[in-house]
Amino acid sequence: MSHSIFLPAILAVAIQAALSWEKFFSILTMSLRIIATGGTFDKHYDPLTGHLYFRDSVLPGALKRARIAQDCVFEALLALDSLDMLDEHRKQVLQSCQRSTEDHIVIVHGTDTMRETAAVLGAAQLAKTIVLTGAMVPYLVDESDAFFNLGFAYAAARLSKPGVYIAMNGQLFDWDNVKKNREQGCFEALR
Amino acid sequence: MSHSIFLPAILAVAIQAALSWEKFFSILTMSLRIIATGGTFDKHYDPLTGHLYFRDSVLPGALKRARIAQDCVFEALLALDSLDMLDEHRKQVLQSCQRSTEDHIVIVHGTDTMRETAAVLGAAQLAKTIVLTGAMVPYLVDESDAFFNLGFAYAAARLSKPGVYIAMNGQLFDWDNVKKNREQGCFEALR
Amino acid sequence: MSHSIFLPAILAVAIQAALSWEKFFSILTMSLRIIATGGTFDKHYDPLTGHLYFRDSVLPGALKRARIAQDCVFEALLALDSLDMLDEHRKQVLQSCQRSTEDHIVIVHGTDTMRETAAVLGAAQLAKTIVLTGAMVPYLVDESDAFFNLGFAYAAARLSKPGVYIAMNGQLFDWDNVKKNREQGCFEALR
Amino acid sequence: MSHSIFLPAILAVAIQAALSWEKFFSILTMSLRIIATGGTFDKHYDPLTGHLYFRDSVLPGALKRARIAQDCVFEALLALDSLDMLDEHRKQVLQSCQRSTEDHIVIVHGTDTMRETAAVLGAAQLAKTIVLTGAMVPYLVDESDAFFNLGFAYAAARLSKPGVYIAMNGQLFDWDNVKKNREQGCFEALR
Repeated sequence: MSHSIFLPAILAVAIQAALSWEKFFSILTMSLRIIATGGTFDKHYDPLTGHLYFRDSVLPGALKRARIAQDCVFEALLALDSLDMLDEHRKQVLQSCQRSTEDHIVIVHGTDTMRETAAVLGAAQLAKTIVLTGAMVPYLVDESDAFFNLGFAYAAARLSKPGVYIAMNGQLFDWDNVKKNREQGCFEALR
Repeated sequence: MSHSIFLPAILAVAIQAALSWEKFFSILTMSLRIIATGGTFDKHYDPLTGHLYFRDSVLPGALKRARIAQDCVFEALLALDSLDMLDEHRKQVLQSCQRSTEDHIVIVHGTDTMRETAAVLGAAQLAKTIVLTGAMVPYLVDESDAFFNLGFAYAAARLSKPGVYIAMNGQLFDWDNVKKNREQGCFEALR
Repeated sequence: MSHSIFLPAILAVAIQAALSWEKFFSILTMSLRIIATGGTFDKHYDPLTGHLYFRDSVLPGALKRARIAQDCVFEALLALDSLDMLDEHRKQVLQSCQRSTEDHIVIVHGTDTMRETAAVLGAAQLAKTIVLTGAMVPYLVDESDAFFNLGFAYAAARLSKPGVYIAMNGQLFDWDNVKKNREQGCFEALR
Repeated sequence: MSHSIFLPAILAVAIQAALSWEKFFSILTMSLRIIATGGTFDKHYDPLTGHLYFRDSVLPGALKRARIAQDCVFEALLALDSLDMLDEHRKQVLQSCQRSTEDHIVIVHGTDTMRETAAVLGAAQLAKTIVLTGAMVPYLVDESDAFFNLGFAYAAARLSKPGVYIAMNGQLFDWDNVKKNREQGCFEALR
């Protein structure tokens, strides 16, 4: 019985050996990964051309502004309009999720093909909670929904059981039960 | 067997009789109640005095901006700095929650005594999911965390099991395991 | 000599007869006309198409926000990208200036052909102070120069002698001594 | 006659000798000095105390956002609520204006005693154009008039003849013909 006091320490070492240290740390704090892929959320206005375009992501600034107390890993993966997203890009998003040592992931994505990327991730059946979100109005434009959506998706990624979800319009949809209503500019359930 | 086609209709009528109609509707759509009580979140700048004060709540505008697809009932209950909140005010908040036909409630509250109000609600053990949130910087001030917190609390109120919670700094705390760290300006767990 | 006390009143009546009443009032208060023609300044983001477009002008809101103490007449004349502005549109702008009972006019205009419209107005040699301004970033987009430019143009229209001017980048240019440097995204003098 | 080609160069050297080089450069480009003294314009919100306070001035950011093409010298002189401004602070403002190699000066100042500081500067009869401005709502708060006022004051400082002025509410007042109407929250002429 005398050696039983070492048990917790031994267990911790065994767990650390089995997992990478980063993984171990992630479990303790339930840290979260935010992956930027572009989309309306992250568009900037270009004064020279008068068009919207991608530059450095607004997300690091938005996360600081949100006053999040925990570690939150930011990954600038892509900077694409979601209409320009090809199969190879979706594969990159999937690989990022697979590689992620965080089990809770928020993906900021364009709304037009958010569902297609969610389907690729859903089919992969990872044991992670993955929430895709975006915005109908860019973060840097007046009356944008982006910051609300980020907060909603952040909570959903922390609180939902493993699976792939779409968080838009104050609702959380399963990846295989959602479509964008383009006339109304909002997401709705299929069934 | 011929009368079986009426069964769904009969059931619906029975359910409607048992519940108020509003309650019935609420169950179908899982609508949510947002209760404003004031706090930093809702402060305006008064150009005449140079002080922050309360006027009409920013929440109806914020909810519209969030592009929430569902019905969301807004209740302007109080407009107080949370340091000015007395027992009778907390009783009012509790009564609003008790009377609410929505089982998912977000309360926008000042951060300084959010925990005290949460304790009053927690002790009442209502069978509802109640999430208190607020902001460190007013919604109408540059770099405010308010809109993120609203999104976070909105998701938490939809996704969490009945109970009373505090949503701040990207975290969801149980009402009896949280305190505000005034030096750091953030909330943290007690244990 | 006894009738001399009536002189000021007689003069006032004569002046009122000669001028329209509105004109008379305008001289007393030096009121100002703001004419909206569209341009980057006034662009909105369309959540359904993802493009910038024109809707109701932002100027009435901007003028209220500026806390201008005097009467300021707002005229929503056109809502065009200045690249789409034709000779007939420039004629409309000229006619508005000619008809204006205010002798101090600010025109909010797209930057790309601001100079061409200024040339049409300059050639007409009206006895009015006309200042064209615009923005490199829309009023409703983060870090917009629009509100500064409006203030600058407003002061320039009040303080400058009759003529046609372009107010951009904190400078006031004569209409025939200015060009837009498209590489730099700023206006500069020709000479 | 052969030495006449050197005349321009000799003249330039003579002028440079007479004036400081900085002064010489300032005449060529009519550069402008912006002096921050604090006031509502420059107030920040402190998340820890819930009060408005002074930190680094917002003016360098505002000037960059204004896309001003010329050199514009920024001087962070004071960071005071204008109700806290004493005679010695007004003397400091006067000394800054006297020392300034720029003949066009904008002073950002609290509105409550803007008139008193203007009187100190006016009495000194400097051969410079000095425009005091401020804001009824801080630059960092929603619906602020600050950026418009800065543009207005900037133009007024460039376009007005030497003297001391107050620029508020879209109007330019002589320093000895203005008062703040505290009930209305706006400036008006005495006569």
